[in-house]
Amino acid sequence: MGRWRFFSVLFLFLMLGCGLAIAGDPTGAQALKADPGKPVDFVWVLICAFLVMFMQAGFACVEAGFCRAKNATNLLMKNLMDFCIGSLVFWAVGYAFIMGSDWHGLIGLSGFFLGGDGYDVDNYLSFFWQLVFAATAATIVSGAVAERIKFKAYFLYSMAIVSLIYPVYAHWVWGGGWLSGLKFGLGHLDFAGSGVVHAVGGIVALAGAIVLGPRYGKFGRDGKPRAIPGHNIPLAALGVFILWFGWYGFNCGSTFSAHHLRISVVAVNTTLAAAAAAVTAMLIVLAKTKKFDLGMSLNGVLAGLVAITAPCAWVEAWAAVVIGIIAGFILVGGVYLLEALKIDDPVGAVPVHGFNGLWGVIAVGIFADGTYGNYSIEPPFVKGLLYGGGVDQLIAQLIGAGALFIWAFGAGYILFKVLDILIGIRIDPREEIQGVDLVEHGTPAYPEFYVIRR
Amino acid sequence: MGRWRFFSVLFLFLMLGCGLAIAGDPTGAQALKADPGKPVDFVWVLICAFLVMFMQAGFACVEAGFCRAKNATNLLMKNLMDFCIGSLVFWAVGYAFIMGSDWHGLIGLSGFFLGGDGYDVDNYLSFFWQLVFAATAATIVSGAVAERIKFKAYFLYSMAIVSLIYPVYAHWVWGGGWLSGLKFGLGHLDFAGSGVVHAVGGIVALAGAIVLGPRYGKFGRDGKPRAIPGHNIPLAALGVFILWFGWYGFNCGSTFSAHHLRISVVAVNTTLAAAAAAVTAMLIVLAKTKKFDLGMSLNGVLAGLVAITAPCAWVEAWAAVVIGIIAGFILVGGVYLLEALKIDDPVGAVPVHGFNGLWGVIAVGIFADGTYGNYSIEPPFVKGLLYGGGVDQLIAQLIGAGALFIWAFGAGYILFKVLDILIGIRIDPREEIQGVDLVEHGTPAYPEFYVIRR
Amino acid sequence: MGRWRFFSVLFLFLMLGCGLAIAGDPTGAQALKADPGKPVDFVWVLICAFLVMFMQAGFACVEAGFCRAKNATNLLMKNLMDFCIGSLVFWAVGYAFIMGSDWHGLIGLSGFFLGGDGYDVDNYLSFFWQLVFAATAATIVSGAVAERIKFKAYFLYSMAIVSLIYPVYAHWVWGGGWLSGLKFGLGHLDFAGSGVVHAVGGIVALAGAIVLGPRYGKFGRDGKPRAIPGHNIPLAALGVFILWFGWYGFNCGSTFSAHHLRISVVAVNTTLAAAAAAVTAMLIVLAKTKKFDLGMSLNGVLAGLVAITAPCAWVEAWAAVVIGIIAGFILVGGVYLLEALKIDDPVGAVPVHGFNGLWGVIAVGIFADGTYGNYSIEPPFVKGLLYGGGVDQLIAQLIGAGALFIWAFGAGYILFKVLDILIGIRIDPREEIQGVDLVEHGTPAYPEFYVIRR
Repeated sequence: MGRWRFFSVLFLFLMLGCGLAIAGDPTGAQALKADPGKPVDFVWVLICAFLVMFMQAGFACVEAGFCRAKNATNLLMKNLMDFCIGSLVFWAVGYAFIMGSDWHGLIGLSGFFLGGDGYDVDNYLSFFWQLVFAATAATIVSGAVAERIKFKAYFLYSMAIVSLIYPVYAHWVWGGGWLSGLKFGLGHLDFAGSGVVHAVGGIVALAGAIVLGPRYGKFGRDGKPRAIPGHNIPLAALGVFILWFGWYGFNCGSTFSAHHLRISVVAVNTTLAAAAAAVTAMLIVLAKTKKFDLGMSLNGVLAGLVAITAPCAWVEAWAAVVIGIIAGFILVGGVYLLEALKIDDPVGAVPVHGFNGLWGVIAVGIFADGTYGNYSIEPPFVKGLLYGGGVDQLIAQLIGAGALFIWAFGAGYILFKVLDILIGIRIDPREEIQGVDLVEHGTPAYPEFYVIRR
Repeated sequence: MGRWRFFSVLFLFLMLGCGLAIAGDPTGAQALKADPGKPVDFVWVLICAFLVMFMQAGFACVEAGFCRAKNATNLLMKNLMDFCIGSLVFWAVGYAFIMGSDWHGLIGLSGFFLGGDGYDVDNYLSFFWQLVFAATAATIVSGAVAERIKFKAYFLYSMAIVSLIYPVYAHWVWGGGWLSGLKFGLGHLDFAGSGVVHAVGGIVALAGAIVLGPRYGKFGRDGKPRAIPGHNIPLAALGVFILWFGWYGFNCGSTFSAHHLRISVVAVNTTLAAAAAAVTAMLIVLAKTKKFDLGMSLNGVLAGLVAITAPCAWVEAWAAVVIGIIAGFILVGGVYLLEALKIDDPVGAVPVHGFNGLWGVIAVGIFADGTYGNYSIEPPFVKGLLYGGGVDQLIAQLIGAGALFIWAFGAGYILFKVLDILIGIRIDPREEIQGVDLVEHGTPAYPEFYVIRR
Repeated sequence: MGRWRFFSVLFLFLMLGCGLAIAGDPTGAQALKADPGKPVDFVWVLICAFLVMFMQAGFACVEAGFCRAKNATNLLMKNLMDFCIGSLVFWAVGYAFIMGSDWHGLIGLSGFFLGGDGYDVDNYLSFFWQLVFAATAATIVSGAVAERIKFKAYFLYSMAIVSLIYPVYAHWVWGGGWLSGLKFGLGHLDFAGSGVVHAVGGIVALAGAIVLGPRYGKFGRDGKPRAIPGHNIPLAALGVFILWFGWYGFNCGSTFSAHHLRISVVAVNTTLAAAAAAVTAMLIVLAKTKKFDLGMSLNGVLAGLVAITAPCAWVEAWAAVVIGIIAGFILVGGVYLLEALKIDDPVGAVPVHGFNGLWGVIAVGIFADGTYGNYSIEPPFVKGLLYGGGVDQLIAQLIGAGALFIWAFGAGYILFKVLDILIGIRIDPREEIQGVDLVEHGTPAYPEFYVIRR
């Protein structure tokens, strides 16, 4: 009974949020009349959003390829389902929490289920864009908790991230919340989401990896980490290429307008940062091991992409290269740091998305060069430390990064702890050795190949 | 001699179809002058068409991944060749049969070989769009007849589908044929081709699977079906992600105009239906087997995408979710139904494309909400049962679905039967056990891996 | 000391090249004001460029799939790194050598590091477009030198190609160099780079394959070639589909303007040539071996795509089919020719990109039909032999093809020879047998699978 009452109240609350709407423009005829330049913006945003959606394929390949064969089906299923269930809960509540009418700078509270006057071509476009971003944040986590989490727990925390953890922080930055209104610089800025998407995903992933503990066999009796190599490197490499491809949509599309010709600068910066980070990561590992390490180079690409995601619209080419080089160092340092702390992150999601996400947010305050505004080609333009902007913007960035860490780590830690108490989030040790695929899904990923069990 | 005479007559007939043309606009300068808004439409349609073409990669991965390793080369070759040979025959005759000048509502009869005044930027754009759709219809069939059909037969029936079976039905709906002129509602409507593309492909696939009979070992001596698991699940999963990605082009591009801002609604509906169907399919199988089944979830995505393809431009978000949920049920029910009927469809092409294609066509008559017209943002708008449209549109949809089934099943059945009599369509049983790859192609898909023969 | 002095002089030289610039338009506001039609051009070029970048994934899959498992990591690493290091050197010098202010028709000499007034939205767009093309040329080579080249040598020659060999020839054709100013026809023409990108890459690859010598075991003691089948055919096939998909960006985007509605003709020609070449290659091999050969069909697709790349904007559909058919013959003939000459090209890069690239350039002089100009929809239009253009354009094409061969083969041969003398370019024979992956990268591509060593 109590449960039903709870849901009834929730339902009423949501319906209230939908509001008594004046009609939107579901046909799009009025919107076209009002602004004949809209078709090219719609084309731009939609195609970029398709590319971002395709990143789901990239994450699936990377995570499946970098884990062991016995868990590949599981990782594919997770990457599929976080987008599926994520789409549904984001439609129900997540989007409203980001973009709904602001409640004390903390959360949005209207537009549930795309209801009422939400049936409008502009609103559907905005929803679609936010959806593919939210799904990215959710999917990042799966890499760090891979090979040992129960599927049911995964399913539930995915819903929590897409419906609440991500939307709340996204509202703070992109939905008119308190971070966007900071009185330093132009307020906290995160162009395409180094922080909002990647660091939130990466820091929640960190909380998850801590609560779960390392995989069986990751740390020897002497406490030393042992390499557990990925089972299908071509699959992982393909995944990184797909992610890089999709990232152009992620970053360039974030202007949300094709009339900002600055999109060409965004594309160049995205490329150069990724390239610089990959070369840097390769060279660091080469100096240490005398080998050209593919895994670290692939993660280097991702590290550079994450780091440039926040500043990509506000910096010039040389700065993108520098941001990428630093991202490469942060990546490698982060990987070693986690191992030193005995935190097991099978695919490196925390250094790639978490640490470099925070770095990207901070970089805005340093390198922004005063040639682009707050999603605007009109002044005021964003200026960082090196271009005469003083420390103002940097302070706004640091406050945002701090708030992000506290929120994402706190909420993530509580979430995983509560789930652990309620349903238990870690699979049985025997099942872990056997592999998640057979236990949870009943089907191995490669039923006809001889696979060496590791 | 008789053969040559036949071809000569055919050739003359085709040349006649090309017509004595007034010049088209191959440069595009006149078209641009006449409508300065055209570039954005061209960009939209072309990029969407590229995405649809990329679905060929998705089908190749899904079908190869879901079959056994010994037949993987064969399935890749089929998926490659149906696009290659399909492009050539569609250029020769297929496009003319769809879009040529109407002959008694049954078939188009001009524009062969893009000849005469067909050399025109608008016409080439239309051809390209229709081509990637026709190729999709052809490629659907290969999944259902996998692992036991002769390559030569495949080659020939692909030509028949792209040159005749598909074009005739497409002419009825999209080329000004009799179904488009039905006096119920706005005539039979199929926005992006749940029926025209997917159901035609899926129902021809059904005919093929029936004529061929099940694979050796699919049904035990007791008549019970036995699972033959796919050999490379990551490949199949990647294929589904690629298909989902490409489907945005398929559905959204079908406005054939970027000036219909409704494209954002199409994108959202496409996503939600796929997500809802996948979650539904997963939950049904979970209830039955206590496992989170990846294969059925992947097919759930496709089922949802197929079902929303016809109605995607005419419904709102909640309806997309409902259409998707029903698609999930139809998928799982369809899989069990075929097994009960002892029809062997290795990748589930018939329930996914056939049954859900028909469901999508019917759904238009139920959920269309009166906010978009017949590829138009001007009234009259399409209205279904639930939005005060009465049963008119639904009747038009049911007539179209019935005509589709009769045409596709009839033509497909006759085609496979005739081919079977003329050249034999099924490979030798010993060769089937050995695998099609070695017999037909001479090369295994994984020559360096130990593969367990199943 | 000497080394530092050298770099100092180089640095000064580059800074000089940056020039004392008048400000560019980094915001894009002026550019938008000056031409309100620009957003759609930016959208078109950027998305096409993203597709071209995605071709890197295609090359990685094709080359890894067509080689042996023991070298797969190596090929993935190469394909990743040529794009990464290539982006950095192209930013530093390559782009300036192509598009900088012309020096005696031979090379460009301004715009290093996108410096000075290079910080401009139009210039960044042009840079991004040229970058993804340059990276394609570099990546082509890796297939022909696969399975036996040292990674360090690969790294260095990639830098040389992207920074010098490719830019110089590209400047001759696309940067206002001497070939573009030839007094025959409209000067040497290469719409999207059959010559500039593919033949340059393919002919450098030929030089590399000759200098390196064949792989151990490729030619028996009797001198007869032995087939070394690719280890993962689905991966290679997926790669070809990705390349085909990306090629639409390559060819269609080369108008560099969405206002040339001719882009639809380009898309159709691209498709038909690929299809015709693939079917042709399949049929030739079928006649010879009675097998439907997938490998040759996949390379047939690529051969057709390469051949149509130069003429795609200047010919009509039937000519594209004919060009494709001839490309199929050139492919198969080229493969046998190389084997007869005892040149080992593991993935067929030389016949696909080298020979067919030259064929594509020549085809312009034969089939251009006078409906499109030199990247212009205004006359003068390009006319070849068959459309009343006489031999003028054909002569310009032949001169360009000759210059290309001499430059690419000469520079490539010297480059590989010098590298061989300086650092040795071929790995140790024992290491070749063991596989490059373990030696150079420390990690096998499939650590959990039983792989048969070949």
